[in-house]
Amino acid sequence: MSVYGLDMTAGDDAFAPRPEHRFTFGLWTVGNPGRDPFGGPTRAPLDPVESVGRLAELGAWGVSLHDEDLVPHGASAAERDRIVARFAAALEANGLRVGMATTNLFGQPAFKDGAFTSNDRRVRRAAIGKAMRAIDLGGQLNAEVFVFWGGREGTEAGIAKDPCDALDRYREAVNVLADYAVGQRYGMRFAIEPKPNEPRGDIFLPTVGHALHFISTLKRPDLVGVNPEVAHETMAGLSFHHAVGQALWAGKLFHVDLNAQRIGRYDQDFRFGAEDIKEAFLLVRLLERAGYAGPRHFDAHAFRNEDADGVWEFARGCMRTYLVLAERARAFDALPEVREALAAASAPELAEATTTLGADEADALKGEADRLDELALRGYANEALDQLLVEVLLGVR
Amino acid sequence: MSVYGLDMTAGDDAFAPRPEHRFTFGLWTVGNPGRDPFGGPTRAPLDPVESVGRLAELGAWGVSLHDEDLVPHGASAAERDRIVARFAAALEANGLRVGMATTNLFGQPAFKDGAFTSNDRRVRRAAIGKAMRAIDLGGQLNAEVFVFWGGREGTEAGIAKDPCDALDRYREAVNVLADYAVGQRYGMRFAIEPKPNEPRGDIFLPTVGHALHFISTLKRPDLVGVNPEVAHETMAGLSFHHAVGQALWAGKLFHVDLNAQRIGRYDQDFRFGAEDIKEAFLLVRLLERAGYAGPRHFDAHAFRNEDADGVWEFARGCMRTYLVLAERARAFDALPEVREALAAASAPELAEATTTLGADEADALKGEADRLDELALRGYANEALDQLLVEVLLGVR
Amino acid sequence: MSVYGLDMTAGDDAFAPRPEHRFTFGLWTVGNPGRDPFGGPTRAPLDPVESVGRLAELGAWGVSLHDEDLVPHGASAAERDRIVARFAAALEANGLRVGMATTNLFGQPAFKDGAFTSNDRRVRRAAIGKAMRAIDLGGQLNAEVFVFWGGREGTEAGIAKDPCDALDRYREAVNVLADYAVGQRYGMRFAIEPKPNEPRGDIFLPTVGHALHFISTLKRPDLVGVNPEVAHETMAGLSFHHAVGQALWAGKLFHVDLNAQRIGRYDQDFRFGAEDIKEAFLLVRLLERAGYAGPRHFDAHAFRNEDADGVWEFARGCMRTYLVLAERARAFDALPEVREALAAASAPELAEATTTLGADEADALKGEADRLDELALRGYANEALDQLLVEVLLGVR
Amino acid sequence: MSVYGLDMTAGDDAFAPRPEHRFTFGLWTVGNPGRDPFGGPTRAPLDPVESVGRLAELGAWGVSLHDEDLVPHGASAAERDRIVARFAAALEANGLRVGMATTNLFGQPAFKDGAFTSNDRRVRRAAIGKAMRAIDLGGQLNAEVFVFWGGREGTEAGIAKDPCDALDRYREAVNVLADYAVGQRYGMRFAIEPKPNEPRGDIFLPTVGHALHFISTLKRPDLVGVNPEVAHETMAGLSFHHAVGQALWAGKLFHVDLNAQRIGRYDQDFRFGAEDIKEAFLLVRLLERAGYAGPRHFDAHAFRNEDADGVWEFARGCMRTYLVLAERARAFDALPEVREALAAASAPELAEATTTLGADEADALKGEADRLDELALRGYANEALDQLLVEVLLGVR
Repeated sequence: MSVYGLDMTAGDDAFAPRPEHRFTFGLWTVGNPGRDPFGGPTRAPLDPVESVGRLAELGAWGVSLHDEDLVPHGASAAERDRIVARFAAALEANGLRVGMATTNLFGQPAFKDGAFTSNDRRVRRAAIGKAMRAIDLGGQLNAEVFVFWGGREGTEAGIAKDPCDALDRYREAVNVLADYAVGQRYGMRFAIEPKPNEPRGDIFLPTVGHALHFISTLKRPDLVGVNPEVAHETMAGLSFHHAVGQALWAGKLFHVDLNAQRIGRYDQDFRFGAEDIKEAFLLVRLLERAGYAGPRHFDAHAFRNEDADGVWEFARGCMRTYLVLAERARAFDALPEVREALAAASAPELAEATTTLGADEADALKGEADRLDELALRGYANEALDQLLVEVLLGVR
Repeated sequence: MSVYGLDMTAGDDAFAPRPEHRFTFGLWTVGNPGRDPFGGPTRAPLDPVESVGRLAELGAWGVSLHDEDLVPHGASAAERDRIVARFAAALEANGLRVGMATTNLFGQPAFKDGAFTSNDRRVRRAAIGKAMRAIDLGGQLNAEVFVFWGGREGTEAGIAKDPCDALDRYREAVNVLADYAVGQRYGMRFAIEPKPNEPRGDIFLPTVGHALHFISTLKRPDLVGVNPEVAHETMAGLSFHHAVGQALWAGKLFHVDLNAQRIGRYDQDFRFGAEDIKEAFLLVRLLERAGYAGPRHFDAHAFRNEDADGVWEFARGCMRTYLVLAERARAFDALPEVREALAAASAPELAEATTTLGADEADALKGEADRLDELALRGYANEALDQLLVEVLLGVR
Repeated sequence: MSVYGLDMTAGDDAFAPRPEHRFTFGLWTVGNPGRDPFGGPTRAPLDPVESVGRLAELGAWGVSLHDEDLVPHGASAAERDRIVARFAAALEANGLRVGMATTNLFGQPAFKDGAFTSNDRRVRRAAIGKAMRAIDLGGQLNAEVFVFWGGREGTEAGIAKDPCDALDRYREAVNVLADYAVGQRYGMRFAIEPKPNEPRGDIFLPTVGHALHFISTLKRPDLVGVNPEVAHETMAGLSFHHAVGQALWAGKLFHVDLNAQRIGRYDQDFRFGAEDIKEAFLLVRLLERAGYAGPRHFDAHAFRNEDADGVWEFARGCMRTYLVLAERARAFDALPEVREALAAASAPELAEATTTLGADEADALKGEADRLDELALRGYANEALDQLLVEVLLGVR
Repeated sequence: MSVYGLDMTAGDDAFAPRPEHRFTFGLWTVGNPGRDPFGGPTRAPLDPVESVGRLAELGAWGVSLHDEDLVPHGASAAERDRIVARFAAALEANGLRVGMATTNLFGQPAFKDGAFTSNDRRVRRAAIGKAMRAIDLGGQLNAEVFVFWGGREGTEAGIAKDPCDALDRYREAVNVLADYAVGQRYGMRFAIEPKPNEPRGDIFLPTVGHALHFISTLKRPDLVGVNPEVAHETMAGLSFHHAVGQALWAGKLFHVDLNAQRIGRYDQDFRFGAEDIKEAFLLVRLLERAGYAGPRHFDAHAFRNEDADGVWEFARGCMRTYLVLAERARAFDALPEVREALAAASAPELAEATTTLGADEADALKGEADRLDELALRGYANEALDQLLVEVLLGVR
């Protein structure tokens, strides 16, 4: 699928989401009841089966879920089976898929000191056990990807956990679970979702970079990638498209969480595109040019002051803005003045090898270092290029 | 060497820096003239030879330097040799070592679009050539570590560089330079110093995590580690001791840059310990308990409103605070009430394996997941532990 | 009362909180059940009467409360009276006072779009009515100060509210309520508590400065001051002691909320002194030297991974750290080397008028502008002074 | 002048800047040589007279300047007069005005500890004298507004300045200077420009709110307003359009500094609109709807990797993006679906008084507080409204 291939002549329909766009929503996103640290829920709970129906109508390709989004904590085996069967039937009936499954290792009070990295070994064991059950559920629903978001893996009091011990335990858990999934012959891959803070003061594996490195130390590194989230890198003020770029460069972009966030704030999970339109454009362009083939997953929710109708406006807006940005990216790349501006910035030249690795190149390179004053004279025409981008975004090019 | 082994009975001298503490200062740190984006220099330039003498008097073990801190841009070969010889003699005379050498790939206007990742291939080649010469200088001065800080490797206009191309070029440069150093039989190791932003809008390899991952993709990963800097991780609001923890965990802490910084601000490079005393304590404790054996390097400078005398107060303060914190860490760990508090937090239990990897452990683990409500009852006593830490820091324990 | 007057010879008791220190805790602080955006409560609710007893034992002077901390939403008049009477009796029995009362205009779903600045006029009216009832409760309990924290007065979608209209409505509400309190002959004063964001994307009156200005536009400006909170200014990376300084300078520090917070994060409300010990010292020193006579109020809560015991450790720690810092401030100011260092920094000279307001002073001043090069030569010895402060904090001076 | 009145039928010319748009640029903006903390200048200095000519060609209405942008430090009276006369002639010849004058109280090393709030009284006096001369220059050039940006008025070591003393000295200086200007019968008004940090660790009057409050304490409050800058509020993560809103509400928006910035970073001063397009739109809409009649002033500079040509691309882009956003704001407000969406959000209702101030209204209001559960049911349709805004910005509405 290539969003760039969209037929843009069809009027309004050009931005109508279709299953081939592979848009997915977490059950917890459209089902978000609007609770926050200072106030109770503002919307009624939503039946997952209703969500499936509504999302299918809106043009989504699939859904994602935590174990508890579907099966309440403490449900009996029989209840679980009934719930899962009803849900699977709804997916079938609506032609929706499960893009991603995950486990909630943050909501239960037992995880208040961490899950895989709780100081209490019993909690760590229970966390692994709960994750195994969630992997079973994901396998049953044919989830492509299973995500680990370690929201409770961290500290407020840094003195309480040796960070090296914590990483040992984190690695142990992921290794054990990857072995388990392989042993069960589930076809899923895993993706680690980093976050710098909230709900813990400092979370282990705070950025995409830390997660990519962690993965390189695993027993089955090929099975595990990352699930970068716009809001999470942005909270720390890091460039999201650079983070996704490093993940793509490493062949590790297994999933992506789309939403919007302002830097240096509580986790906002706004509608995709609601903040920093330019960064959203750079992200969509990067994903589409790279041929990213995983789910385009929205991990966001409607503003708390919305009622039930507002939730579906929110969902519509996420997908529509993605498609508009994809079209803008295509249009941008097709403009002759953009090609000229990229050339003036020498952007294509960055793809060329710097060295020839010739035998005596060192002396040549050292000699070229004497030319710095001369090399300083040229400009890189980034203002013109960036202004072109702003004007394409604003629809005046 | 272990700072924990300090004889604390010797009164004031207990905090007197000695060569075995391996404190080092960059020539550019005590030599910082106080220029900033809004004002000119407030202090006269300092002769590196004078710096060497003063630092030796103060108890430092060594110095570090950029090529241009010692040899001005454009110096002839003869000038260079004379300058280096005079400097080497001063080191010899004062018993100081070069802990770390690096190359300045950010000051020259030619690097305005990047060095290893400039869009202009000629600039990239010149940057590698300049780095080779700096490696030669480092080799000549027996530097233990050679640092790459890619301060200009980034963008303000994200559209101007494909981030995957940029990482390709970055990797190519480090691979070529590592080959070069090995070919020349220099004994140095390399360390990459990450930074999220400033002087570029967004810098590639923004955090310790990104750098650790990048290293795992190199041709000679064993030769390359990281040089985390307090200010750089802190700018992005990330926990510095967690970052250093991940580097230690990976066996990659080859060097460390000590200073102080407030979150979310311009790069401040304050005197070590001048901000966030608790985090500074956690860092020193982590380094000392891990037996970190590299240079304790201060990459900081005196406030701009200091005169020449203030510079040496600044240098004295950096080392003294480190030693006080090391003593506090030792004292903290020796307190019976601290041991009790750590036990109450189950901190030692985090070092125990979670699983036994027994054949039928999966079923056991799943079963333990049913105990979550019971496991939620205990507390982790982090308030008492953290308060103990605050009281030890404040000298009332 | 002056904490500086503490008898520090009494050993451990030196840091024992006593009623004359005027420490207060919100009922919602020790009663915080540990709910956060990602997880449910980890501690059982606490009976306000139990809190009163425990706080009295610990040495607090009083408590503060939201209307709903005491009287549940929807209670009948009779229930309310019974609850209030029981609570007042507990205060009486334990010798505790109500330092501050306030109204919860953020928890009820009806306030999801704001309270005094909701776009729905009916909600605005209900908010004022609810505040009136809370003022009645405060009056009945002889609260010294009544606080307005407008946590819901803001937007996520900036387009949805004209900011000038919002300030008009905000002012109208405060004017009406101040009139009401005066009309009822309650003796309380009002204090506005600013916050930059969370739970709204952007909150009106985001900082102490904005609130101080807003107050200057009120009908009864003399009756209204500010209630700065450490966490709130710190979230935006602003200096808290500078904010409190401007409030003191304006004669508007009517109340203060003490806790701890890292910059650029979700609202953490940590134990006082748990973060940024130097800033906490500067704050305590400023308050004590200014003779601040209002409640020393802790608006903080125990870490979520604490059980019920941890709550009282938390409360003890808040007060103890305040007293230790007050003692350190006194000790700091008494040190001869500190006086010398302050003099070297010309700190006392900042209290001297710059001009004489003489008739022909303009010409003299212009002439003095020619001396800048000469005036640039001196240093301000801030490194030595700041290092002294660090060493006093660390207990080695 | 109203940008909303633009004739948008004229094709490309619709976004061509014209003098009636009152765009101004600082001499230091187009003249910025590209120096930063890590590297030297990348562009040659620009003759102010050339800047005047180029800006006139591009459609600007005027320029602004620091004293030293025009007259170098240490120039003799004769030199000064010659320079000013030549500059005034260039303004005359090109039909350009001086929108704003200011004084550089940050570049000279003498101001390293502050200017109006330096601890050294001699520096404070010299600062006032220098400002008087700059006021004379501003008067001579008929500047409408004279700005005070106290970039050095702050601390890195908070202990070195009592914040109340500092505010006393700051107020004294502004009072003396306002008296001076009135005494000289210059017609200019004053504007204070707040900034949270950089180049100082913490700057006094860090936000628009603090400055507005400070103004309310001056001897001549009517003569003094604020000069909010996009980058400065944004560094602290505050909503810029809310800050400008409070200034407009207070009748204090005397000037405005337009540029772009990411939150939590060094002062970037990017091209207007280069970051956070939605916030830029909200700002332009607010200014245009309020009939803001002061200069639309760009305090920004070209990226450092630009050559001389890039500077004029930058200047063109600033103005063009402003005009595009103004047109988008007009179009947005004219759309029927926008009016409906604003009504669904009850946005116009926020302009209605909440109370009637009737004699017995208190009882009515209290009674209405019982309706909260019912008032919670409605939604505010902010998702639909905000999505409309995004789509108008992206040119698909």
